[in-house]
Amino acid sequence: MDSIEILEKLHRIDRERLHLEKTVALLQWDQETYLPEMGVEERAEQLALLESIAHERLTSPETEKRLSELGSTAENPQGDEKLPPLERDFLKTFRRKYDRAVKLPATFVSEAARAEGLSQAAWVRARQDNDFSAFLPHLVKMIDFSRRKAVYWGYEDNPYDGLLDIYESGMGEKEIGAVFTPLGERLKELLKKIASRPRPDNSFLDQDFDIDNQACFNMDLLKRLGFDIRRGRMDISAHPFTTTLGSDDVRITTRYLKQQVQSGIFSTIHEAGHAFYEMNFSEVLRGSCLADGASMGIHESQSRLWENVIGRSRSFWEAMFPALRSYFPAALSSHTAEEFYRAINLVEPSLIRIEADEVTYSLHIILRFELERELFSGALDPVNLPTAWRKKMKDFFGIEPETDAQGVLQDVHWSMGAFGYFPSYALGNLYGLQFWEKLSCEIPAVDEQIRAGNFTAIHAWLRDTIYVWGHRLDPQDLLKTVTGKELSAEPFLGYIESKYSVIYGF
Amino acid sequence: MDSIEILEKLHRIDRERLHLEKTVALLQWDQETYLPEMGVEERAEQLALLESIAHERLTSPETEKRLSELGSTAENPQGDEKLPPLERDFLKTFRRKYDRAVKLPATFVSEAARAEGLSQAAWVRARQDNDFSAFLPHLVKMIDFSRRKAVYWGYEDNPYDGLLDIYESGMGEKEIGAVFTPLGERLKELLKKIASRPRPDNSFLDQDFDIDNQACFNMDLLKRLGFDIRRGRMDISAHPFTTTLGSDDVRITTRYLKQQVQSGIFSTIHEAGHAFYEMNFSEVLRGSCLADGASMGIHESQSRLWENVIGRSRSFWEAMFPALRSYFPAALSSHTAEEFYRAINLVEPSLIRIEADEVTYSLHIILRFELERELFSGALDPVNLPTAWRKKMKDFFGIEPETDAQGVLQDVHWSMGAFGYFPSYALGNLYGLQFWEKLSCEIPAVDEQIRAGNFTAIHAWLRDTIYVWGHRLDPQDLLKTVTGKELSAEPFLGYIESKYSVIYGF
Repeated sequence: MDSIEILEKLHRIDRERLHLEKTVALLQWDQETYLPEMGVEERAEQLALLESIAHERLTSPETEKRLSELGSTAENPQGDEKLPPLERDFLKTFRRKYDRAVKLPATFVSEAARAEGLSQAAWVRARQDNDFSAFLPHLVKMIDFSRRKAVYWGYEDNPYDGLLDIYESGMGEKEIGAVFTPLGERLKELLKKIASRPRPDNSFLDQDFDIDNQACFNMDLLKRLGFDIRRGRMDISAHPFTTTLGSDDVRITTRYLKQQVQSGIFSTIHEAGHAFYEMNFSEVLRGSCLADGASMGIHESQSRLWENVIGRSRSFWEAMFPALRSYFPAALSSHTAEEFYRAINLVEPSLIRIEADEVTYSLHIILRFELERELFSGALDPVNLPTAWRKKMKDFFGIEPETDAQGVLQDVHWSMGAFGYFPSYALGNLYGLQFWEKLSCEIPAVDEQIRAGNFTAIHAWLRDTIYVWGHRLDPQDLLKTVTGKELSAEPFLGYIESKYSVIYGF
Repeated sequence: MDSIEILEKLHRIDRERLHLEKTVALLQWDQETYLPEMGVEERAEQLALLESIAHERLTSPETEKRLSELGSTAENPQGDEKLPPLERDFLKTFRRKYDRAVKLPATFVSEAARAEGLSQAAWVRARQDNDFSAFLPHLVKMIDFSRRKAVYWGYEDNPYDGLLDIYESGMGEKEIGAVFTPLGERLKELLKKIASRPRPDNSFLDQDFDIDNQACFNMDLLKRLGFDIRRGRMDISAHPFTTTLGSDDVRITTRYLKQQVQSGIFSTIHEAGHAFYEMNFSEVLRGSCLADGASMGIHESQSRLWENVIGRSRSFWEAMFPALRSYFPAALSSHTAEEFYRAINLVEPSLIRIEADEVTYSLHIILRFELERELFSGALDPVNLPTAWRKKMKDFFGIEPETDAQGVLQDVHWSMGAFGYFPSYALGNLYGLQFWEKLSCEIPAVDEQIRAGNFTAIHAWLRDTIYVWGHRLDPQDLLKTVTGKELSAEPFLGYIESKYSVIYGF
């Protein structure tokens, strides 16, 4: 067999892996949207079976055989130098998936999955009961499983690096800390300045906004943003998410709160940003492991760019507010686009990450990053986590949660063992503004276009500059390729400081 | 290993088979309800992969090994006589599935699947273009594949028997013909009598009925019928269907036509009838191949019993008409339950099976059965099918289609190679009335209960008498067990003749 034939066989294995992954994604999407309440238990069994089949097929001896026939090894994942660059990128990415899967013993995987299930259930109860001690033994187990996972996969300096690498390949705690620490300081300063200024009025957002009308407006908005409903859809779920069920089947969800019309709107825009990325990888990557985002952080850069930089801009609401007002004349007819813009950009210290504004959001992330780092270095004993949480909240925001439910128990991530995931949210903010800086140079009148509700040039630039790469480049390489620069918080800080100094007048 | 351990292993194989089957069903359900239009092509690949994995796992050498360890062979499928009766029924059913799967060579299965895909696409175009000759070569291929399938599976007298057996185990063309031929004669006579009487007025059903209101009424109706939405749901699709995605996840679809409010209503009731069956197998059968209907015909007996015997009864609309009228006051306020009852029971010869009334429906089926029988005996050359169709239409109904699109091309079944499927629809009518005769003896005031909108006793009787068996009994054994009688058209004919002689006054 020549290398073309072997590559074909490997692409077929990859394509089947993808189909199984997408089938799992459908089972999950359905669970979050339409599954009847009593169907949950059997769905868990279906998911476990499909995941084990996917694992079994990916790690079959044929995969290793084909990879090594093409010269791909742990040391030289890209394989034979004579292969075309695209195929070498494919081999690198595919081998990474294969290695990740094959390095974890099957017993460990199923043991961890069972423990995660129990841990999540315990977390739900503990949060309800505001009882951290009931969750503690599960948290300890989750840390232990994550540590063992990092050992199986290998890491350079410390286990936490091995976990960060899952979500943001090439980024360790040193690299992230070097950016996050000064970012946190600057944001804390900014927050103090803002707190000294009068608070804009956002009380008119507390009115009732009919849910059906919200659904109509959001669908309208989604289409105006350029979402192609022949290749995707939008449904409702408790926690909004984006999932890709096929190259031409990218689905987002949103949710509507009667008294906070902005909640649904920004969920919709955020998830649409993820979807635009997923819908526009280069055609040549279609159906392979390269048809994927570069990393969690890069993915988040796209959702946050649409949600915040575009979606929370004055220009955007000059374009969209008339439509919004037409859906809610009673609530909004006496208000202007400018008032709405100020109301949705209100900044204040708050307890809950997912409700945070653009300025404080990254602080919530830095807090979690610092705690994770201490948990894995051993400097922080999990039993002391609630105290450490409160102390950092006081330091970062000047407020403290009254309960652990509103504090250390608020997020699902740790209960699932997803340590190292949080940083990607704040990295997304940074990447996003680095990309936007470049985009603004290359599309000079971008603000005018947003004001006209015209996103064509933005879509084209993002597609041709970022999306086209899919998973071919690691996040830092993509950043360098697109912007010519290394990771930096400056564009983000510049954007935040200039936007909010105008809103708050300092 | 003792037999309990071996049984456990076999149940596990069966349970995994079921999970894969349900996953395939979810992929299909989603395709009919929510899949974005451009996602169809990749969905076909996902389905093909999942189906091949399901086949591969079911036919693994372990299955045969475990079956034979328990004494189950082709000649003695129920296995060792010392096993409990439930396990022997399980072995019989499981081996039947295994045999069906293992007897078809993998190359034949994939060849047939590809040909079916092409044939269905050709049928869609041929029906649009009213061009039977474009479909003919595919039809010939479908007949050939079906014949070969029958050969692989084996049959007693002729290949058509082998196909009928898939849908109605134990019923051959001789048994079915013996019932269908006199049934057809009696229905033709009745139709002539009805045609001689004045036609009831159903023109008020041709008004506009708001689709959203229809959706609300149908959901209301579904709940009144006793459908538990914690264990199922109702969505919309072009062709209504019922699918089981888990023991506690049974989904139906319906569809609404603006000008025919009754179309959605009877789709909803029909599919609810299927769903009640699927939702109420005995708990001990849960998660095994015995948690299934006894046959297509028995399944259809349940949907038709709810749709027709209950749903098209005068008592039912005495209960439900006030609610229907409250949803559509403009269209229905000047009409009575009695007028509605007569309008929805209008009988007349028509060209299209799925739009046929209770009297003519079975004639459409008998026509198809007779043609299938001739196609497989060789008496009818497929090239002459359109002519044969017209001739039979003339004989049965006194009318002929102007186009083949309204005639021989109207149904999807033959394009999929589903020969032998049609008879189960009419068998369902017969079984249904045999069951109803028995139920009426045992619930004396059943009509009063329907008039009160109370279906509790009916549900309990059906569950404890029929559903509880699941797939343990073959259809004729189930019929005998429940009613003490063999298959007979008399109860159905008695019901039809008495109902319509009152409506039409003869």
